[in-house]
Amino acid sequence: MKATVMFGAGDVRIEDVSDAMIVEPTDALIRVTRACICGSDLHPYHQLERSETGTRMGHEAIGVVEDVGSKVTKIKKDDLVVMPFAYSDGTCEFCQKGLNTACVHVGFFGSGMEGVGGAQAEAVRVPQADGTLFKLPVGEDDALMPSLLTLSDVMGTGHHAAVVAGVGPGKSVAVVGDGAVGLCGVIAAKRLGAEQIIIMGRHDDRIALAKEFGATDVVSERGEEAVERVRGLTGGFGAHSVLECVGYAQAMETAIGIARPGGAVGRVGVPQDETIPASLPAFFGNVTVGGGPAPVRAYIEELLPDVLEGRIEPGRVLDRTVGLDGVPDGYRAMDDREAIKVMVRP
Amino acid sequence: MKATVMFGAGDVRIEDVSDAMIVEPTDALIRVTRACICGSDLHPYHQLERSETGTRMGHEAIGVVEDVGSKVTKIKKDDLVVMPFAYSDGTCEFCQKGLNTACVHVGFFGSGMEGVGGAQAEAVRVPQADGTLFKLPVGEDDALMPSLLTLSDVMGTGHHAAVVAGVGPGKSVAVVGDGAVGLCGVIAAKRLGAEQIIIMGRHDDRIALAKEFGATDVVSERGEEAVERVRGLTGGFGAHSVLECVGYAQAMETAIGIARPGGAVGRVGVPQDETIPASLPAFFGNVTVGGGPAPVRAYIEELLPDVLEGRIEPGRVLDRTVGLDGVPDGYRAMDDREAIKVMVRP
Repeated sequence: MKATVMFGAGDVRIEDVSDAMIVEPTDALIRVTRACICGSDLHPYHQLERSETGTRMGHEAIGVVEDVGSKVTKIKKDDLVVMPFAYSDGTCEFCQKGLNTACVHVGFFGSGMEGVGGAQAEAVRVPQADGTLFKLPVGEDDALMPSLLTLSDVMGTGHHAAVVAGVGPGKSVAVVGDGAVGLCGVIAAKRLGAEQIIIMGRHDDRIALAKEFGATDVVSERGEEAVERVRGLTGGFGAHSVLECVGYAQAMETAIGIARPGGAVGRVGVPQDETIPASLPAFFGNVTVGGGPAPVRAYIEELLPDVLEGRIEPGRVLDRTVGLDGVPDGYRAMDDREAIKVMVRP
Repeated sequence: MKATVMFGAGDVRIEDVSDAMIVEPTDALIRVTRACICGSDLHPYHQLERSETGTRMGHEAIGVVEDVGSKVTKIKKDDLVVMPFAYSDGTCEFCQKGLNTACVHVGFFGSGMEGVGGAQAEAVRVPQADGTLFKLPVGEDDALMPSLLTLSDVMGTGHHAAVVAGVGPGKSVAVVGDGAVGLCGVIAAKRLGAEQIIIMGRHDDRIALAKEFGATDVVSERGEEAVERVRGLTGGFGAHSVLECVGYAQAMETAIGIARPGGAVGRVGVPQDETIPASLPAFFGNVTVGGGPAPVRAYIEELLPDVLEGRIEPGRVLDRTVGLDGVPDGYRAMDDREAIKVMVRP
């Protein structure tokens, strides 16, 4: 079958690889009908060390179940399913508490884990199928497919940032980063009742979309100027809730700088540094820093009705569609900020 | 009057200074009946740059009101009051939400702020008296005085760490640091219903007290060994709630390392570094890091009944008493770990 393999920074290729198959009795095999390229895929696109074998890419998918292992009981052949970016057993104490990304059997697709491939491919093996996959009540070419696809990662991730940051009715919210996750963070903040939503970014197309999603203010400055602007917009004190959707130290420093005393930063951008900056400002402001890999599997049930009934349209962040052969150029387009997020139809 | 002045690292002296007095109409003047030396006073004791004028020391006190400014309405002459380490107006939006340490008029005693002295003195000027001071329903030599005195800082601070770390019934709690704040953190964790309380420290006298306060387990290892031990004591996953009561990077790294996925670290040790370590472990474990200067003023109402009725005895951390002249040796004794915390009777 064909699959996306990254052999080093900037070197993405579509390769013929051995077919995905059932390995464990708890596995399912899905034929991928939709996948995406993720902002987090750009980190290896910048930094991955060259190797002969390469790394399979892709961790967001919708697909049709082609086969299941002997111990899979809930997921059936021919089900159309969302595949979250992490697999989880659905039964351990962490899954029961809705933190599937800390499952005792957790693993991540497209991460180079042995025996687990990537979703930017014709098919993918899904471990812990019963706990991981979520059956959709629509057909594989439903018009809502882009929005449903975001439940595999970016919409759930933006929602996680908002939940961790304590977004609620009447709150002021600042979203650091206008990528797909940041834009979904705007949707999540609006959905959770925020009164003010400040989007921080500088790409016209993304800002326009953020406004359609509910952003009330735009801050395009960076660093200390951005901090001053947000404080000015929030009565001088900063935002109650800050969604850090980037992952770089400068973004986190800004996030802490614009949080109101007693406020919270929800970080979902994969950190690119060993330490969290601005320890003292966070401490003296009693600002909480939380977040991590979003338990998107746990959030699907909450978010799905709003997608199915059209109240939220996170699929609009997917502004380009390619076939598998177009994936390498999709990486380039995202890296060049030509596309917000690329959908893949294998 | 006599007051404690630190002129440089290790150089603490009792000096004759000009009398404390009312400056603003919202001030009170209190005659200090009890003060303490704080673990955080040891930071300047190690690091303060030498100066001619020195810095007034002390931020925890109980005292008798000698005079009040013309705009003070709630606090009266002759009231016996607790003076929290920070002053606050009691009316701004942050005070109303119980975050007095973010008050728009906040200031800190014994911090070198112009015109505000320290509490290790015969008297102290208290700005924002109505918002800051809390009247006690006992006499100035009541036997509960040591425990009441801890409401000015360490008991409220330990409680804050526990609140921020989400301590509650059935939870496992680890307390990093066996100083006075850590010991009060044990009291707070027990009081909030924790099922397991692990004290991390290596001083026999403090550990013994921690056990009397409710600690169920002791971990004396440090670094990676400490992390392994705590995980072993908590089913392999770490503690739900971690109270970081030290402030050094190594302590914070340990705190994050022993937090269960989805858990929380409440930090109240004044950070001695610009960054928070272990960003990636915190992120991948969805561990929240919060805390800061405790709004002890807001906590007095909750904690006072338990002190008055003897259900908690935080005053036991005050294991040495000195007069003003004994303050310099009190610093030495705390720095040498001869005393846990020193009470001062001016």
